[in-house]
Amino acid sequence: MPYVTIKMLAGRTEEQKRACVEKVTDAIVETTGASRDKVVVFLEDMKKSEYAVGGVLLSDEE
Amino acid sequence: MPYVTIKMLAGRTEEQKRACVEKVTDAIVETTGASRDKVVVFLEDMKKSEYAVGGVLLSDEE
Amino acid sequence: MPYVTIKMLAGRTEEQKRACVEKVTDAIVETTGASRDKVVVFLEDMKKSEYAVGGVLLSDEE
Amino acid sequence: MPYVTIKMLAGRTEEQKRACVEKVTDAIVETTGASRDKVVVFLEDMKKSEYAVGGVLLSDEE
Amino acid sequence: MPYVTIKMLAGRTEEQKRACVEKVTDAIVETTGASRDKVVVFLEDMKKSEYAVGGVLLSDEE
Amino acid sequence: MPYVTIKMLAGRTEEQKRACVEKVTDAIVETTGASRDKVVVFLEDMKKSEYAVGGVLLSDEE
Repeated sequence: MPYVTIKMLAGRTEEQKRACVEKVTDAIVETTGASRDKVVVFLEDMKKSEYAVGGVLLSDEE
Repeated sequence: MPYVTIKMLAGRTEEQKRACVEKVTDAIVETTGASRDKVVVFLEDMKKSEYAVGGVLLSDEE
Repeated sequence: MPYVTIKMLAGRTEEQKRACVEKVTDAIVETTGASRDKVVVFLEDMKKSEYAVGGVLLSDEE
Repeated sequence: MPYVTIKMLAGRTEEQKRACVEKVTDAIVETTGASRDKVVVFLEDMKKSEYAVGGVLLSDEE
Repeated sequence: MPYVTIKMLAGRTEEQKRACVEKVTDAIVETTGASRDKVVVFLEDMKKSEYAVGGVLLSDEE
Repeated sequence: MPYVTIKMLAGRTEEQKRACVEKVTDAIVETTGASRDKVVVFLEDMKKSEYAVGGVLLSDEE
């Protein structure tokens, strides 16, 4: 506790993901007072063929 | 806003997915008054080996 | 199967919700070939104080 | 109804997953009175590179 | 780890919820080898006015 | 895009929630290169009677 889920388009590097979970965890600890070792982060990759805005798949926009 | 997640068994074609996100977006806009460009749809594929009804995996029912 | 989750700001009437689940179900059946009685829809209300875009809660934008 | 989602690190065998959905379904039926054929279970695998505790990805802990 | 989410219609008693999380946790530990203190369970109540099967809200079926 | 969901025990003040979504958004923008106005954050409150670790509801631990 807390549990954070971050859903974004695939394509981030391992380095970016590592930095992302570290900085997001910092932000949670700083603002909510949760203890750092209790913060859980799940990353979820989306494919452009499984994500639509305004009724159009991102894979069809390119 | 709104955010729609559609979870179904893998196996739909790209053509079906394209039609699905388009028609679902139409339905949301028509019934809720949301503006079309704000409607977000996420598609999620399920595998038969990761989905159970009545305690039995679908991959074991075939 | 399929399972559809629709997350939107609170404030829709019962009439709008009723129409929304009906039309979204129509759209799913028509485009994926799922049988109507298998389509499940979950509605989730969001509060403006629990939803942020660009780092700002919607309740702070008014 | 009910809908159960079980998210865990990848690596369980088919045999473990089969037993897991069966026993969890037993537990739900026994304690809530739901009818067995209405219990739906979704399994979700997590990768160690997409899961962090305390700001550190599990893939970096090894 | 593992993380279990159980979504069901509102109306279960505290006693049923207590038994449910205990027995589901037992089932997870027994079948996956996870250590008991790592099993996390989230309960989510659904309202009949926010849940539809076959395009009809449960609150309209009564 | 990205979509961030933060689930934590109820009880944070509006001030903490405001700071939390702001700082988490900062962290996402800084580490992933996403544009700020595309970052969406959902906050979800958990009740102690709907959250269990090790098979015991938090509401029973007090």
